[in-house]
Amino acid sequence: MTERRIPVATVSRLPAYLEALTEKLQHGEHTTSSQDLAVATGVNAAKVRKDLSYMGQYGTRGVGYDIPYLIHHIERVLGLTEQWRCALVGVGNLGRALASYPGFDERGFQVVAAFDADPAKVGLRLGGVVVQSADELSKTVADRGIVIGIVAVPAPAAQTAVDALVDANVKSILSFAPITLYVPEDVTVRKVDLSMELQILSFHEQRKMALQEHSETPLRRVN
Amino acid sequence: MTERRIPVATVSRLPAYLEALTEKLQHGEHTTSSQDLAVATGVNAAKVRKDLSYMGQYGTRGVGYDIPYLIHHIERVLGLTEQWRCALVGVGNLGRALASYPGFDERGFQVVAAFDADPAKVGLRLGGVVVQSADELSKTVADRGIVIGIVAVPAPAAQTAVDALVDANVKSILSFAPITLYVPEDVTVRKVDLSMELQILSFHEQRKMALQEHSETPLRRVN
Repeated sequence: MTERRIPVATVSRLPAYLEALTEKLQHGEHTTSSQDLAVATGVNAAKVRKDLSYMGQYGTRGVGYDIPYLIHHIERVLGLTEQWRCALVGVGNLGRALASYPGFDERGFQVVAAFDADPAKVGLRLGGVVVQSADELSKTVADRGIVIGIVAVPAPAAQTAVDALVDANVKSILSFAPITLYVPEDVTVRKVDLSMELQILSFHEQRKMALQEHSETPLRRVN
Repeated sequence: MTERRIPVATVSRLPAYLEALTEKLQHGEHTTSSQDLAVATGVNAAKVRKDLSYMGQYGTRGVGYDIPYLIHHIERVLGLTEQWRCALVGVGNLGRALASYPGFDERGFQVVAAFDADPAKVGLRLGGVVVQSADELSKTVADRGIVIGIVAVPAPAAQTAVDALVDANVKSILSFAPITLYVPEDVTVRKVDLSMELQILSFHEQRKMALQEHSETPLRRVN
C-alpha cells in the first residue's frame, strides 16, 4: 500500500486520531479499541477501523490497537517525524499567538522566519525570530529551506501574501484569512476557520436549550 | 425528523458545507451538486447526499441543490440564525486576535465580555469590550446572558478558566489550550488545535517531495 492510496478524507481524520491516541498514552493507556477512538473523535467505529487499516493496522481481537505503534505510523504518514521549516506572514495579534503556539513545535513545525509589510514591525523579536520586511521573503525562503507558509494577515492582504509565498516557490500554505485564495495547481492551501468549532458548539447549546425549554414536550421538528 | 436524529459526525461536517456554499453564493452560483460539494470539502459525494438529507434536502435530479435554501437550513440547524453571547477568558495575543476575528460576528458569535487574571490587563479595551477581572466572571455571565465561554489562556491556566466558566453555569466551552479539560457531563467542550490543518498540509508536502525525488521510481511503501 503506497501513500498515494490513502484517501484524502482519511488523511483529514488522522490528526484527530493522533490527538486522541497521544492523550490516551499520556494517561498511561497502551491499547485501545475502535469504539474508544470513535467516542474520542466522533467518527463511527467502522470508519475508524477502515481508516486505521490504511496505517497497516487491523487491531487484534480482544486486545485492540497498540497505541504507541499507531502513533508512530500516523506520525510517519503525516510527515510529523520530520522537521518542517515554516515562514509566518503577518505578525499582528494572531501571528504573534501562532509564533509561540506550543502545538506547532511539538508536531515538528518550526517558525524560522516572520514577515510583515508594516515597517514599524520589522526588527521586532518573536521568540527566536526577528521580523523581516516582506521584500526579503523570497531570499529568506530559499536560504532557510522554508517549505510551508503560514498566512496570518487581515483578509484584504491575504492574496498578496499568498502570491509572495507562491513566487518564493512555497508549495504548501496555511491561511487564517476567511476568504477564497487563488493559487497555481501545484500549490496546496488549507484554510483554518476559527469559528468552525464554535458552530458545532452552538448546535449542542441550542439542543440543550430546547431540551430545557421543552423538557415535557416532544422536540420541535427542524424541517 | 428531529434535531436529535442528526448524527454528531454529520453536525461536525455542516460548517464545512456552509463555508463552501457561502463561497459559491458569493461567486453568483445558486445551485450546486453533491459532486461539487464533495470536491470543495473533501467529503465523498455519497456522504454529502446523506448528510444533506438530514437537512430535508435531497437535491433535484438535473438541477442539484438550491444553495440559498441549503445555507438557510444549515444555519438553522447549527443555531447560527441566533445571536450567541460569548465570554472570552484570556486576552493575550490569541485572545486579542479572537476578540476581533471577523468570522465570529459573521456567524452570530458576539464576544460581549473579556476576562484576564492579570491585573495589568483589566480595564484595557478590546473592540467594544473592557477587560474585567476574572473575579467578576460569574456575575457578568449571569447579568449579560452569556452562554458560551472561549478559553484562550496558556495551557497551565486552562482548567482553572474552565472551572470558573462551569461555576458560572456556562454549558458550552471552546478551548484553544492543547490539553485535556475535565468538565461535568452536562457541559460540552470543543477543542481547537491550531496545528491540525498544518498536519494535513505536511502530508501533502511530503507526498509532493516524494514525487519530485522519486519521479522515475515507484513510491516508497509506507508499511
